[in-house]
Amino acid sequence: MNIRLYNARILTMEHKRPAFSGEIWIKDDRIVYVGEEETLKEELEKGEMEGLHFDEEIDCDNNLLMPGFKDCHTHSAMTFLRSYADDEPLQKWLAKKVFPNEQKLNEDYIYEFTRLAVLEYLSAGITTIFDMYLMPDVTARACMDTGMRAVLTSGLNNFTSSVYQMEDEYKRWNSKEYPLISYHLGFHAEYTNSKENLYNLGHLVRNLRAPVFTHLAETEGEVDDCKKRYGMTPAMFIESMGLFAYGGGGFHCVHMSQDDMDVFKRNRLFVITNPASNMKLASGIAPIAEFVKNKIPVAIGTDGAASNNSLDMFKEMFLVSALSKIREKEADSMDAVRVLRMATVNGARALGLKRADVLAKGKYADIIMIDMKRPNMQPENNIRKNLVYAGDKSNIKMTMIAGRVLYKDGEFHIGEEPEKIYRSCNDIVKKILK
Amino acid sequence: MNIRLYNARILTMEHKRPAFSGEIWIKDDRIVYVGEEETLKEELEKGEMEGLHFDEEIDCDNNLLMPGFKDCHTHSAMTFLRSYADDEPLQKWLAKKVFPNEQKLNEDYIYEFTRLAVLEYLSAGITTIFDMYLMPDVTARACMDTGMRAVLTSGLNNFTSSVYQMEDEYKRWNSKEYPLISYHLGFHAEYTNSKENLYNLGHLVRNLRAPVFTHLAETEGEVDDCKKRYGMTPAMFIESMGLFAYGGGGFHCVHMSQDDMDVFKRNRLFVITNPASNMKLASGIAPIAEFVKNKIPVAIGTDGAASNNSLDMFKEMFLVSALSKIREKEADSMDAVRVLRMATVNGARALGLKRADVLAKGKYADIIMIDMKRPNMQPENNIRKNLVYAGDKSNIKMTMIAGRVLYKDGEFHIGEEPEKIYRSCNDIVKKILK
Repeated sequence: MNIRLYNARILTMEHKRPAFSGEIWIKDDRIVYVGEEETLKEELEKGEMEGLHFDEEIDCDNNLLMPGFKDCHTHSAMTFLRSYADDEPLQKWLAKKVFPNEQKLNEDYIYEFTRLAVLEYLSAGITTIFDMYLMPDVTARACMDTGMRAVLTSGLNNFTSSVYQMEDEYKRWNSKEYPLISYHLGFHAEYTNSKENLYNLGHLVRNLRAPVFTHLAETEGEVDDCKKRYGMTPAMFIESMGLFAYGGGGFHCVHMSQDDMDVFKRNRLFVITNPASNMKLASGIAPIAEFVKNKIPVAIGTDGAASNNSLDMFKEMFLVSALSKIREKEADSMDAVRVLRMATVNGARALGLKRADVLAKGKYADIIMIDMKRPNMQPENNIRKNLVYAGDKSNIKMTMIAGRVLYKDGEFHIGEEPEKIYRSCNDIVKKILK
Repeated sequence: MNIRLYNARILTMEHKRPAFSGEIWIKDDRIVYVGEEETLKEELEKGEMEGLHFDEEIDCDNNLLMPGFKDCHTHSAMTFLRSYADDEPLQKWLAKKVFPNEQKLNEDYIYEFTRLAVLEYLSAGITTIFDMYLMPDVTARACMDTGMRAVLTSGLNNFTSSVYQMEDEYKRWNSKEYPLISYHLGFHAEYTNSKENLYNLGHLVRNLRAPVFTHLAETEGEVDDCKKRYGMTPAMFIESMGLFAYGGGGFHCVHMSQDDMDVFKRNRLFVITNPASNMKLASGIAPIAEFVKNKIPVAIGTDGAASNNSLDMFKEMFLVSALSKIREKEADSMDAVRVLRMATVNGARALGLKRADVLAKGKYADIIMIDMKRPNMQPENNIRKNLVYAGDKSNIKMTMIAGRVLYKDGEFHIGEEPEKIYRSCNDIVKKILK
């Protein structure tokens, strides 16, 4: 399907390129043209677009097109615990509310709660997720069925997964057969894995030359326990096991020493920050300004709906900036332009999705339309700052992934009625949660 | 105009009353019935509703009706500086970006930017504002013309206002002639007022037996400077001037000692907290849990769009809870149910609007409809927690003030096209801001 988006303002997120008026042409799942009306004529005259017939032409009415947000850390199916397990610190929350209830999940439940999460991602302009959860095959199916782009990882741990299983998953989901899905190696955390587990994972990392992602330095207690166990911080211990030899990154990274940052620098790791979740679980405030000073790239994730409780990159963007200002006691600590890049370009890079970073010819048609005709986007003193400091889900007018319009003007186009998903999700929680 | 809202779920916000299925009847600007279908029949049989004819009957489709949010601290017309004056600490921000540009404002500009703010309040389910700004008469007119309920205060200071002017305003805007508008005494802050100003205001307080509101203990510097000037904290100094003799409250209250809290307790003052603004200006995190322990009532405000940058009580509610968890390092520090009361019931009480606190017979018909058919409100493990921890503007399906539907399904009904307001606001900023 070929689509023309015209009469738009476009923020490609290419370095230092300001927003301009123009149009975007899409052929199947790719962008074939982004530009101003004038260069468009040149392009046409060159004959490059010859024979391109549009199935749909969408008048953007002077609203803003930009790359969709990359939610680089989530547990989609945890929507089942939204507003059920609140107001507890991380370790107690995991032990009492999360792990026991997760044991009640089956494939059907995970499928349904992942679809619920996808509805929310689309309503929030999120076009790619990096999902770590039980049964990634089921998450993959739910994402493919709805049209969501997803990077998966199974989150190796002592209880529910194995390195052998991960190798299978890695090969299956990185094949060209599934263009919406890819897969990274990952383990849940240092504190949920035996040394043997991580040793075996090290073998796989070397065989596949693959990056690895994990929860890291989320709480002070986690860091202290790891030091007691291994005489090292989690980052240093994981590096010592050879797991960061091909890059990757850490989720959360709240309690990080300069040594830990040096681990990140020399292994070219990404910090994936999750500010709302870190607040809600009272884990702390990540030192984002220090990461930036150390030239450690930062991407952003929502974490799961059980600890956030929404899946909303606007909320996270505001918090990345505003928490940094509070932490550093400097109102200019973290400006909006940088944060908008973290939520888009850096996210794509962290996930290894080179075609998802900016709007340009040859890139994925993962595009969102920002409704500029909402009062919170006015006046237009600074569009990027409006997005980061004042934006919210009500500004998402359209979400397109791989050239398909999956959400527009409040309506979902995922091949299923949202109300049917809501009903079945409520039926499940009534059955499995007290 | 009489309206029937039926097929609804209703959260009246009366103490400990759970949500129930029922309907609400509205006669002119008041609620005449709230209840379940069964009691409705009894009511009808008693003949109490006799002769009530509905001009409009709205099927709420099982969505949630609740009292609108009370934004207890805002500067509406400061929308003109949204995303223009960012990333600077408070005193520098005021001196360099705010005060010089405010001098360029005239009545027409304030009217237009207040209307822009009203659009945002309505889209956010805010049914009452407490606005402190230059030219409150103009703000009053913008609110009356659009249907917004507003409590005004002129914010006495050394430069732009006088106590005499305030006495006039107080009498004018508290008359019965303007049912949407009321007025409280207020001064900008200790540090923008001479002692003489505050002495004169003290006379007026005693004459009118009126509560007083002011910016208070927003930054550490403010507290330190006041101690140098008067040997007392701002709260203690203002009390010593007799300004809190009839109650009132403080905006921000970030840096508060136990002595300051004692001032609040013995004068029955309200804390009006503004978490997003305090983050963005790097002012600090208010000790909300300590206020609650001290039984000091807390209400919530957005502050102006120049320092926030949105006017969104969902954002503030999340932050009141989540910042308290971070500050106290306890994930159970501030739960959602309490915060939802702060944003509604406590707000109405802080403003002295006894008819705006809950949904009940005789109260103002200031009602919002929450769209429960959005993915972030699902599953329904806990509706109040969903609102506070996961809600956003996209959940506002309808905003009614004084019995008038001013916003519904994304459309505004304020007697003016939003796009016309956006255009004129952009024209003004192009003229007055570089």
